[in-house]
Amino acid sequence: MAMSRIARTGLRRCGVSIGKPTSQGEELSEGVSLHKFSLPSDYNGVGGRNPSYFLDSRIVDYNSFGSRGMKMTPYYQFAHAERVVEESDSEYESSKYPSLEATKIGEKPRVVVLGTGWGACRFLKGIDIKIYDVVCISPRNHMVFTPLLASTCVGTLEFRSVVEPVSQIQTSLAKDTNSHFYLASCTSIDTKNHEVYCETVSDDKDQREPYRFKVSYDKLVIGVGAEPLTFGIKGVKEHAFFLREVNHAQEIRRKLLSNLMLSENPGISEDEKERLLHCVVIGGGPTGVEFSGELSDFIMRDVRQRYAHVKNYIRVTLIEANEILSSFDVGLRQYASKHLNKCGVRLVRGIVKEVQAKKIILSDGSEVPYGLLVWSTGVGPSDFIKSLSLPKSPGGRIGVDEWLRVPSVEDVFAVGDCAGFVEQTGKQVLPALAQVAEREGKFLVELFNKIGKQNGGKACSAKDLPLGDPFVYNHLGSMASVGRYKALVDLRQSKDTKGIAMAGFISWFIWRSAYLTRVISWRNRFYVAVNWATTLVFGRDNSRIG
Amino acid sequence: MAMSRIARTGLRRCGVSIGKPTSQGEELSEGVSLHKFSLPSDYNGVGGRNPSYFLDSRIVDYNSFGSRGMKMTPYYQFAHAERVVEESDSEYESSKYPSLEATKIGEKPRVVVLGTGWGACRFLKGIDIKIYDVVCISPRNHMVFTPLLASTCVGTLEFRSVVEPVSQIQTSLAKDTNSHFYLASCTSIDTKNHEVYCETVSDDKDQREPYRFKVSYDKLVIGVGAEPLTFGIKGVKEHAFFLREVNHAQEIRRKLLSNLMLSENPGISEDEKERLLHCVVIGGGPTGVEFSGELSDFIMRDVRQRYAHVKNYIRVTLIEANEILSSFDVGLRQYASKHLNKCGVRLVRGIVKEVQAKKIILSDGSEVPYGLLVWSTGVGPSDFIKSLSLPKSPGGRIGVDEWLRVPSVEDVFAVGDCAGFVEQTGKQVLPALAQVAEREGKFLVELFNKIGKQNGGKACSAKDLPLGDPFVYNHLGSMASVGRYKALVDLRQSKDTKGIAMAGFISWFIWRSAYLTRVISWRNRFYVAVNWATTLVFGRDNSRIG
Repeated sequence: MAMSRIARTGLRRCGVSIGKPTSQGEELSEGVSLHKFSLPSDYNGVGGRNPSYFLDSRIVDYNSFGSRGMKMTPYYQFAHAERVVEESDSEYESSKYPSLEATKIGEKPRVVVLGTGWGACRFLKGIDIKIYDVVCISPRNHMVFTPLLASTCVGTLEFRSVVEPVSQIQTSLAKDTNSHFYLASCTSIDTKNHEVYCETVSDDKDQREPYRFKVSYDKLVIGVGAEPLTFGIKGVKEHAFFLREVNHAQEIRRKLLSNLMLSENPGISEDEKERLLHCVVIGGGPTGVEFSGELSDFIMRDVRQRYAHVKNYIRVTLIEANEILSSFDVGLRQYASKHLNKCGVRLVRGIVKEVQAKKIILSDGSEVPYGLLVWSTGVGPSDFIKSLSLPKSPGGRIGVDEWLRVPSVEDVFAVGDCAGFVEQTGKQVLPALAQVAEREGKFLVELFNKIGKQNGGKACSAKDLPLGDPFVYNHLGSMASVGRYKALVDLRQSKDTKGIAMAGFISWFIWRSAYLTRVISWRNRFYVAVNWATTLVFGRDNSRIG
Repeated sequence: MAMSRIARTGLRRCGVSIGKPTSQGEELSEGVSLHKFSLPSDYNGVGGRNPSYFLDSRIVDYNSFGSRGMKMTPYYQFAHAERVVEESDSEYESSKYPSLEATKIGEKPRVVVLGTGWGACRFLKGIDIKIYDVVCISPRNHMVFTPLLASTCVGTLEFRSVVEPVSQIQTSLAKDTNSHFYLASCTSIDTKNHEVYCETVSDDKDQREPYRFKVSYDKLVIGVGAEPLTFGIKGVKEHAFFLREVNHAQEIRRKLLSNLMLSENPGISEDEKERLLHCVVIGGGPTGVEFSGELSDFIMRDVRQRYAHVKNYIRVTLIEANEILSSFDVGLRQYASKHLNKCGVRLVRGIVKEVQAKKIILSDGSEVPYGLLVWSTGVGPSDFIKSLSLPKSPGGRIGVDEWLRVPSVEDVFAVGDCAGFVEQTGKQVLPALAQVAEREGKFLVELFNKIGKQNGGKACSAKDLPLGDPFVYNHLGSMASVGRYKALVDLRQSKDTKGIAMAGFISWFIWRSAYLTRVISWRNRFYVAVNWATTLVFGRDNSRIG
């Protein structure tokens, strides 16, 4: 009862006539679940441009919901909201549920951005705050400069040098009356009512109940990223470290230093020393390779000096099911393999079957004892993305069209690792790379500023506006450092085209320079340079904090 | 049975004749408890200098054990050791218990240092490694530059700029074959056998069992520090933050930033905003005052800019039962009070009765709602210190004589916050200050290097050696910053003597310069300067990590 009322009030905003449910979707959403994916009856495709494939998508999406393993987010997750509704049965008083209300006439349109990754932050940086108010919702208040994260695990860089507070990226979040940053996770999206439901993150001393609230949007940009893929392998989540956030890097550093010190304790057997100091990296992508290279640098330069008692026990193994750096040119791959071998990184081809507390079991039955296990086998859709009743791309990301709009719902856009082209666009899902997300964020900035100038910023007001050219991704190339002042630079547009591909010290210099200029703020540019210089002069800091 | 055997074997090392227990202590220790405080029969006072007061102390200590609230550390805490003993009943095979064995003839004597605070690290830095092997045992592998810790809570300085890895302070710990650093806590001391019992710290992902081992020493230096005093007030440990370690500062920073962001959430009431952003500091010593000053700086400079929505809600209250900065000159105290008031810090005289999750209850019944509570009311003996069967000073610290030796046991020394003169010295227990600990560490360096040169480094070999002048503490003065480029400098030797006492910007400049030169390594000196400069230029970093 309460639910149908919410659905009804919700549809008000877009002026959808709910008196005549013409599609199957409408009926479903009224009778079954508020969040069930449904199409407004007057939905007419993407700005009227290509209605045909959206009609297809409509049918496809409906029929394949179950088989895609998508979960519905039932409304009763918001116990508080329900209670409010029940108490005042006469009308759904959304004001009683803590919320940032819909913008009124005369107010600037509000863009809500979910996430603080590459895509979301690039968008925040560029969005015209004269046209829009912005609200950013994310469980972290900073962006992580991910390509340099591996360097922080061993102390080449400090943690703070690779993070950028979001309030520095877009100062209006901190200053403007109607712009906000909320330290919270989005738990569900009500696309009909143009609302997102959120709850605060809580990891403090006082285990407080998460605080729940909702935020109305005129436009929504989803850039919540992805989660590490574990392929359902037993024990990965319990025992392995990922390398996606700064606290992951902090944990890895703490564990590595702990193991170095523990292996020195009296009475530790040779086998146990070897186990404790065996660092295993699973996954030979850029992150895995760069982390292995950094580890090797750390061992060569710092462990030898500062952990002389155990220096002969430490080893690095990189396990990959196929080839390392598979997106790179074959010549570069070979260079990387040789170089890593020379640096003491053992490359093993294998498939992990199970991870136990002290050993990995490979599919051929062999066992690999380890002290530190870093898991870096790519990313896939998070539970939150899976739970959303939105169209999906192949692979389960949020489906977007060529303008990064989520088809079938209005005013919802998605960027970065959580977004992928729907099948009907005929385009391939783009790789989960920082440069893809950044380019998408930049594209949306232009699109938003354009429609904003034509008064299309408000909810349901951009339907008939021309959007300009669709998003086209041109790969600029890939880079990966492999340790000891060496890196790979591959400037080909794709795997099959020709172009510059080089490796060695000059590439490493390009790698460092390129990243230094990409770091967003001058403060961090300065700190990254200072960190690199002090690492060169003083070595890496090895205090184990926390 | 096992215990008496251990006691017997233990006495071997110092060549004490156990056949003729001449003192009451000997009998007690055999029959009752291994760790019961006892005097070897041939104990002859402090280097033969002043046997009379130690005879007194002997009697006093025996009679007052119970009344002093000292706990015995029973041997059965070491379950593993007991099991070993029981299995091989024929002889106590200490070799089965993981250990660093006693040094052999021809080997350098081994100094075991417990702790990595000011005293321990000053000792480690200076000890002559040509004479001694050193083993340092501590749950943290770095020293914290405590006077600058308050600055890290708000981002004026970075965490790593105020920590110094112990392997940098004494490189032989990392390099020399017989010197080691163990990341572990000492759990008990067997002064008869010249052994310390340790267990590793474990806060990792894999909740591993602590690893237990023992280490033999020729000389032992205890510098394990103290613990924050809570006076048994209910709720302090659960809800308040201390400010003694880097991870405390990290937690405070995280909480402060969380509260700033949470208070911005939609629907938060005015009262709740005020509560969340009410920072309460309990204790008006230098730490409490400096932290309040830093908070005020942070609010003035950074909160206004970066948290404009909630800037009018944030407040700082400093609660002190007596006077703030009671060790400082009365003129400086008044200056500090006025200045803090001007900076917006509310000074309240009050006594805390109870701390609840969201409010403090004072003894007059008034309630103080808070969002962040920092507890800084001085320090007292830790549980470990309380558990040791060693003589104690007034106040429950490890008792030491004028040469910082623990009377009644041989080859045991104590420095810093965990040590205090025994009553019989007629000297007052020194305040828990970094400069006291550092001066004590330095004194021991000279004493150790002196007796080491006279072949007195080995266990029980320094009895008849002249020790030189006893330790005399001359207070160099006190400094405290109070925020906004102001500080106090009090160069009087004690509260009652005359001397220079000044406050203001020049004092602040002296404060910064003095600390900059005191920071141990060039790396950190550089980073502290760089942090200060970037804070001035860019403001404080406000990323909430972890």
